[in-house]
Amino acid sequence: MNDFEGEVPRFEAIERPSVPAMDSRLGVPEYVLDHGFVRLIDYMGDEAAIVQAARVSYGKGTEAVSKDRGLLRYLMRHWHTTPFEMCEIKLHVKLPVFVARQWIRHRTASVNEYSARYSIMRSEFHLPSPDELAQQSTTNKQGREGGYDADDCKVIRRGMARAYDSAYTTYADLIDEDDLNLARETAREVLPMSIYTEWYWKVNAHNLLHFLRLRADPHAQKEIRAYADVICRIVEEWMPNVWEAFVDYRMEAHTFSRQEMESLRTYLRELYEYADEVGPVSIPPSLCIDGVSDRERVAFHEALGNFNG
Amino acid sequence: MNDFEGEVPRFEAIERPSVPAMDSRLGVPEYVLDHGFVRLIDYMGDEAAIVQAARVSYGKGTEAVSKDRGLLRYLMRHWHTTPFEMCEIKLHVKLPVFVARQWIRHRTASVNEYSARYSIMRSEFHLPSPDELAQQSTTNKQGREGGYDADDCKVIRRGMARAYDSAYTTYADLIDEDDLNLARETAREVLPMSIYTEWYWKVNAHNLLHFLRLRADPHAQKEIRAYADVICRIVEEWMPNVWEAFVDYRMEAHTFSRQEMESLRTYLRELYEYADEVGPVSIPPSLCIDGVSDRERVAFHEALGNFNG
Amino acid sequence: MNDFEGEVPRFEAIERPSVPAMDSRLGVPEYVLDHGFVRLIDYMGDEAAIVQAARVSYGKGTEAVSKDRGLLRYLMRHWHTTPFEMCEIKLHVKLPVFVARQWIRHRTASVNEYSARYSIMRSEFHLPSPDELAQQSTTNKQGREGGYDADDCKVIRRGMARAYDSAYTTYADLIDEDDLNLARETAREVLPMSIYTEWYWKVNAHNLLHFLRLRADPHAQKEIRAYADVICRIVEEWMPNVWEAFVDYRMEAHTFSRQEMESLRTYLRELYEYADEVGPVSIPPSLCIDGVSDRERVAFHEALGNFNG
Amino acid sequence: MNDFEGEVPRFEAIERPSVPAMDSRLGVPEYVLDHGFVRLIDYMGDEAAIVQAARVSYGKGTEAVSKDRGLLRYLMRHWHTTPFEMCEIKLHVKLPVFVARQWIRHRTASVNEYSARYSIMRSEFHLPSPDELAQQSTTNKQGREGGYDADDCKVIRRGMARAYDSAYTTYADLIDEDDLNLARETAREVLPMSIYTEWYWKVNAHNLLHFLRLRADPHAQKEIRAYADVICRIVEEWMPNVWEAFVDYRMEAHTFSRQEMESLRTYLRELYEYADEVGPVSIPPSLCIDGVSDRERVAFHEALGNFNG
Repeated sequence: MNDFEGEVPRFEAIERPSVPAMDSRLGVPEYVLDHGFVRLIDYMGDEAAIVQAARVSYGKGTEAVSKDRGLLRYLMRHWHTTPFEMCEIKLHVKLPVFVARQWIRHRTASVNEYSARYSIMRSEFHLPSPDELAQQSTTNKQGREGGYDADDCKVIRRGMARAYDSAYTTYADLIDEDDLNLARETAREVLPMSIYTEWYWKVNAHNLLHFLRLRADPHAQKEIRAYADVICRIVEEWMPNVWEAFVDYRMEAHTFSRQEMESLRTYLRELYEYADEVGPVSIPPSLCIDGVSDRERVAFHEALGNFNG
Repeated sequence: MNDFEGEVPRFEAIERPSVPAMDSRLGVPEYVLDHGFVRLIDYMGDEAAIVQAARVSYGKGTEAVSKDRGLLRYLMRHWHTTPFEMCEIKLHVKLPVFVARQWIRHRTASVNEYSARYSIMRSEFHLPSPDELAQQSTTNKQGREGGYDADDCKVIRRGMARAYDSAYTTYADLIDEDDLNLARETAREVLPMSIYTEWYWKVNAHNLLHFLRLRADPHAQKEIRAYADVICRIVEEWMPNVWEAFVDYRMEAHTFSRQEMESLRTYLRELYEYADEVGPVSIPPSLCIDGVSDRERVAFHEALGNFNG
Repeated sequence: MNDFEGEVPRFEAIERPSVPAMDSRLGVPEYVLDHGFVRLIDYMGDEAAIVQAARVSYGKGTEAVSKDRGLLRYLMRHWHTTPFEMCEIKLHVKLPVFVARQWIRHRTASVNEYSARYSIMRSEFHLPSPDELAQQSTTNKQGREGGYDADDCKVIRRGMARAYDSAYTTYADLIDEDDLNLARETAREVLPMSIYTEWYWKVNAHNLLHFLRLRADPHAQKEIRAYADVICRIVEEWMPNVWEAFVDYRMEAHTFSRQEMESLRTYLRELYEYADEVGPVSIPPSLCIDGVSDRERVAFHEALGNFNG
Repeated sequence: MNDFEGEVPRFEAIERPSVPAMDSRLGVPEYVLDHGFVRLIDYMGDEAAIVQAARVSYGKGTEAVSKDRGLLRYLMRHWHTTPFEMCEIKLHVKLPVFVARQWIRHRTASVNEYSARYSIMRSEFHLPSPDELAQQSTTNKQGREGGYDADDCKVIRRGMARAYDSAYTTYADLIDEDDLNLARETAREVLPMSIYTEWYWKVNAHNLLHFLRLRADPHAQKEIRAYADVICRIVEEWMPNVWEAFVDYRMEAHTFSRQEMESLRTYLRELYEYADEVGPVSIPPSLCIDGVSDRERVAFHEALGNFNG
């Protein structure tokens, strides 16, 4: 097949990367909401796989592990996202349909879902717990705020539970094989969006982090956030340095607009000059951050206009 | 910006491609099911745009229009799909949630959907018409078959309608601003999957045809097929030659497996030899197909093993 | 096909959205580098189409145009990206192969490229202009810095031009139909990466902005940036408010990490307290930004820890 | 986090699926062309993972292994593609740039490539072996046909080798750090498309099979086919039943157009009637295929119009 004329490159046999913390999780459910779960089914790659993919760009061999954390942070900070695509995770998830409808909007994953055309849906519905119940928010049109006292919670939950029971009874009557035997794909139309479904969901680490950034966010609906939070814990065990970088440069980072940056730079300069001028003694020490590279520190001061020299 | 040293290429100004049959459709709803519709909102490109993209590969200028049909058929036949990506369509669709859940599995489209977190859902549900009602199929686990007499239809429809009414009453009570004022995102959990939602859906012609191939197929659920059929009519007006090729090479084409092809070739050869031998006079004329290229005709005979010489 | 029982929704016929500034650009080349160009071939949608898609989520009709700018900025600021997918652009681009190789990494576009298997490549190569020539950067491993005097430029350009000539002569000899007539797909192997190719490139506005964010950035290679800059001007004419928001919230925005935000908040509070304490008179007025919503202003102060009360 | 009220579903811990034949391949290069290779770096899932994903749709537990082959063939035959997305493969590939340009058109994979902006390209070029050399085809505009005698091969190869040497010498001169030290990203413009690059390429099994269908096909360029052929062998070891089904229902299947099917059905009926009429004795036995399901056999006869009763 080949026709090597020069030196043939030699490679050692390798082993599949594995992460012990992940291996011990395989198959074990993390329960979510009242009937849901997230189970790790399989995964591919680890932090070293991300580093390996990033390093092929530089044309160097794998360097000392001690530097991998720095490279992973560099990739995250500069939005070099393709190396994170080199890792993959597969989860088995049980979730209410209204959550599944939000989740599926992430188009970059692979999904195989339980089919209500083939199979009979089980009588399992999401009934919000008292702490999930709150009034329609007046300030955030897509949110909830406040909460209810025990009596109101009881009223709401009883009303919802009754609706579920009633819908499922209708469904069961329609599909009864000894009676109407209505096609399942038609009968399921009466089932409410709180009913639980299941799927296998597979996604690469880059798209997973994007999912978590949107769905573990306070603006996400509380119920999907419960799933996202569980998955965050899995990622943290899978790739701890990536997780740390993700928190630092995404989840708890803050972006200022052009106008805000201008305002901030002006204000800092003026405040500093004022303090410098009026102060009899030393003004507060300069801005400092620990545990970052020199280059990152320089970039920070530049972003702020190097206001204090 | 540029630094042209040699001859500068000249181009004429052009106009946007438009298709009169599509222009007269813009905004006009095609009604589907009991409360749904499909409205053409915008489109991009026409058959000439597909031809143009295909021809850039050949490095020739646009050739005579009379040959475009042949090129479009060639592209379809040989699965040269990228030129079809050069056209785009945008539809406004109103559809039941259980149909939306099937539809959204096509990940290559852009979607903006009505939000039940922001907005109050209207009391509009899909109630199957009598001809949509049928028993669970015993041979096709995901289908329906048979039908019901008028009395059974009445029983089923009454049962479903009552379930919808009851669910919507619960919903309305929960979100009543003067009473519980439950967050909409929570209250909607009681709503059944037959409730109508709306979205804008935008997709390129290649992915649209793939969608139609799966959803205008007899194996698709009857309700989503009703939408697919309406969209088929739109495509037929938009790009008639593409539609014709799509029917010929996809919808009504047939694929035989390796085993089937072997069996077919053997059988044809043996049957032909037998007929040739026993027959006193002429055997039936050779296989022929009209309206296709010579190359296509040769390929047909080759596929069948050139059994008759 | 349909079975409307209640009120049938009525819609007005509509017209395709069009943007005069774009219509007058159609087909007209913007020249880039020494032989390249970007030509607008078609587009779909305008700013109103983005607003329309965003508003379907809110379940309201289209509101006053005067508020559209605010909504577009809101979408950009909060990374609500799907409405931007509702617009599409198609460009005809002539570009060197080494630029095409960077460009094609953006996987979300549709592409039809000139084929060197079918067609003979023309003798058109990118020869860097003197201002494009610079030394390998010592600080930025993937960049260039400095520059050359006229003599060195001449040496470099002459060396490159000679290499192009020589390669093309070999190519022409290999494919000479009266002589070797080597298959084009093989002969093109000798052609250098500076040779120009052409393609049709179609992408939605969301993915286009992502492309521009990466390729109009100072870290992008100068040559692809020349193309991105031209496309930026097209987008600015196509959707001026979107462009403005894109500059404010992406191109000239700045993201601070968790550590930087903590450091910044601490420093501002300490500097402010110090200035407040030592100062005999008024310290600089509070941070202010004009032309943004109250909500945005509040968020700005919150992000900085509300350090001055 | 959870609030289980009913029965908590229990699951056993599981192990990662592994395939011994793949494990023993990990890291080992398969050499391709004159300097290329394909190395398996990692994989995720096996045939059971595909079956598992398919079965979630049916809501049943995993059934007897003996039936898995049948299910895999069913999925392939009916284009149920999502379960195949549940498996993933990662390869390290060294390949000429002109092959990489064809390969990268498959947009559904993840790629990290060696960067000619960061790193110095090595002097390794694809020089076609004598059996790869052929004339431009006159019938197939994108192909080659025929071949050369030893003398012509020598002439061609010498010409190409000289072009490579000359280009690389220019490149080396331009980037010489003690002399011009031209930026690598500029100097590489003189390098020919035959130069070797490297990348990590990761793709799911569905998209991999699609890639192989196009690139292991006789219409693909011979050089990329050499890579595709090697990957075919890897897939065959990874998932033997899937491979068999892929050959039967894709690679060696044949699709007849609507017109061809009509013609075929008519011809078969007429020929059969003629043979039946004129023949004194028994005509050839009916079409038969072994090793397929009854349903598949019925479908075959139906497709052919059940011409012989």
